[in-house]
Amino acid sequence: MSEQETSREKPRSYLESGVNIALADQFVGRIKSLTGLTSSKDSSRLLPGAGGYAAVYKTDSGLNVACTTDGVGSKLLLCEELNRFDTIGIDLVAMCANDLICVGAAPALFLDYYACGSLDLNRSTSLIEGIVAGCKLADMLLVGGETAEMPDLYQTNHFDLAGFAVGFVGEGKLLTGQSLRDGDLVVAVSSSGLHSNGFSLARKLIPEGSPLRAELLTPTEIYVRPFLQVLNELGSDLTGAANITGGGWTNLLRLSKDCGYALKAMELSPVFEELARHVEPAELYRTFNMGMGFAVMVRSAEAARAAIDIFARAGFAASVQGHVKDGHGVEIDCGKTTIFLE
Amino acid sequence: MSEQETSREKPRSYLESGVNIALADQFVGRIKSLTGLTSSKDSSRLLPGAGGYAAVYKTDSGLNVACTTDGVGSKLLLCEELNRFDTIGIDLVAMCANDLICVGAAPALFLDYYACGSLDLNRSTSLIEGIVAGCKLADMLLVGGETAEMPDLYQTNHFDLAGFAVGFVGEGKLLTGQSLRDGDLVVAVSSSGLHSNGFSLARKLIPEGSPLRAELLTPTEIYVRPFLQVLNELGSDLTGAANITGGGWTNLLRLSKDCGYALKAMELSPVFEELARHVEPAELYRTFNMGMGFAVMVRSAEAARAAIDIFARAGFAASVQGHVKDGHGVEIDCGKTTIFLE
Repeated sequence: MSEQETSREKPRSYLESGVNIALADQFVGRIKSLTGLTSSKDSSRLLPGAGGYAAVYKTDSGLNVACTTDGVGSKLLLCEELNRFDTIGIDLVAMCANDLICVGAAPALFLDYYACGSLDLNRSTSLIEGIVAGCKLADMLLVGGETAEMPDLYQTNHFDLAGFAVGFVGEGKLLTGQSLRDGDLVVAVSSSGLHSNGFSLARKLIPEGSPLRAELLTPTEIYVRPFLQVLNELGSDLTGAANITGGGWTNLLRLSKDCGYALKAMELSPVFEELARHVEPAELYRTFNMGMGFAVMVRSAEAARAAIDIFARAGFAASVQGHVKDGHGVEIDCGKTTIFLE
Repeated sequence: MSEQETSREKPRSYLESGVNIALADQFVGRIKSLTGLTSSKDSSRLLPGAGGYAAVYKTDSGLNVACTTDGVGSKLLLCEELNRFDTIGIDLVAMCANDLICVGAAPALFLDYYACGSLDLNRSTSLIEGIVAGCKLADMLLVGGETAEMPDLYQTNHFDLAGFAVGFVGEGKLLTGQSLRDGDLVVAVSSSGLHSNGFSLARKLIPEGSPLRAELLTPTEIYVRPFLQVLNELGSDLTGAANITGGGWTNLLRLSKDCGYALKAMELSPVFEELARHVEPAELYRTFNMGMGFAVMVRSAEAARAAIDIFARAGFAASVQGHVKDGHGVEIDCGKTTIFLE
């Protein structure tokens, strides 16, 4: 594959980097129609967790169980290239834990799937050390995992990782996105970099040898602790939360079909500045988090201040970057230009 | 990789097929020492589910939540070779659901991770159709999943699948293996073939073009419904259950350090007969299920008859193949020879 890559022009979109989001969306549509056919009495137990970030299942005991799965995409390949395996496990946990909290769940249990071409004991141990570190940050227990050595499927140094997370949604804590309304403020919480999305494109735009290349490996922030505090303290003044993953700022649109957003761009770190030199703004904001790793929607300026304080005490910069509005789509004021995503 | 394979002698063990179980065991040891360090107050909530087949977590509501993850190994590569993608999803669900029931959990929720080099809509839809079919057989809801298109990690036609399952353990239903004792009977429930383990070796021993090759794809049996009935009807006369996966008949040893097993071999289907032509008996029984897909341990002959009846009504052949005994290891009477696994 790498020969083919280097002989090509630099891609300017996610599609050109070999990842077809439109086709993926079509596939998701088919999955939905298939799973719709699983008409079980149990499906009435599924609660409308915000944005499909996690499935939420109501049990007879009154407890709501949330679960989700995610991977770290081709950030994996950068680990191999830079021979650094101790933090990608943090990314893996972060991707799942940050999804769980979007439905109001407190993360509790984590399991990993680790597949490789050849089991290297030191590298594998580093991977697990990262997962354990991530679990501590997310207050989760690593309770299981599967290690698969498949020499005929993965090249010797290649591997893949998937994470599975279970959390519990307390009484009255479920976030559905249904209470979002015109005028709610959007508190953007800063990301640590690309997190774990957009790497098929980013790896091609930030060349090997660039000082920014190693920075791409910075692990994904884990927002669990401050966010759960916001959830507890703000109550119904918290109207939604979005983990900004693949799809960039369009993730906000997952929460409700009935509203749009008017936002201004965040200040860009050098990595995002570099990406912006190659990619059109609309593609940038629908692929990367562009500095906003997580978004929290609140009812009032006072609630925004409270949320910002809580995040600040946990070491996260947060700021009001705009508001929810009637209509649809995400409008982003980028200074010189304004873009609109839908 | 395939050139390398065909230029080699046929492997006669799992190690020679490129999979190093001893190294994997060493890795699991390291994981255990690492996760032991996650000394959280929450770890006291982990219950001793039998054999580590699934993690069991006690919640404040009194409900016990079980979860597990698994893949289908290199059976995947056979799907590509035979261009048949509609049943491997059944295997994926089966691998997880059959693990969950070993701790006494009723499977409820399933999520999949699907990674590929290039998203082919028809193939991907077949994969999901298989997963949905498996979920129906296991009475689970498919509640989520992650699809990752990673052209630089997977070859165009390659893909990997991982499954994640959540179940609930009813009051008094937890199976721990601690009540197993000398004289308990072992009811072996027939497998449908190799299920989803040992394919790195089996694909090399049963050559392309062999009429047995397509048979290798037969989906893994899902034992959920009859087993849950056995669990309900037998109560404390059911003393253990083991899903026979990677590790073959040594899976029985996962349940308790304090007992061994005296068993006789099952009648072998043509696929297992063929494998037996190439592989030493001890290696055979520690790699493949050799006809026993699932084992149920019961206190009495009457309980064994009841279990066999329940499985028979669900279409599964089951028979008493031996008993639990003081000591350790699995002794298997293979007719001409007796082997001992530990």
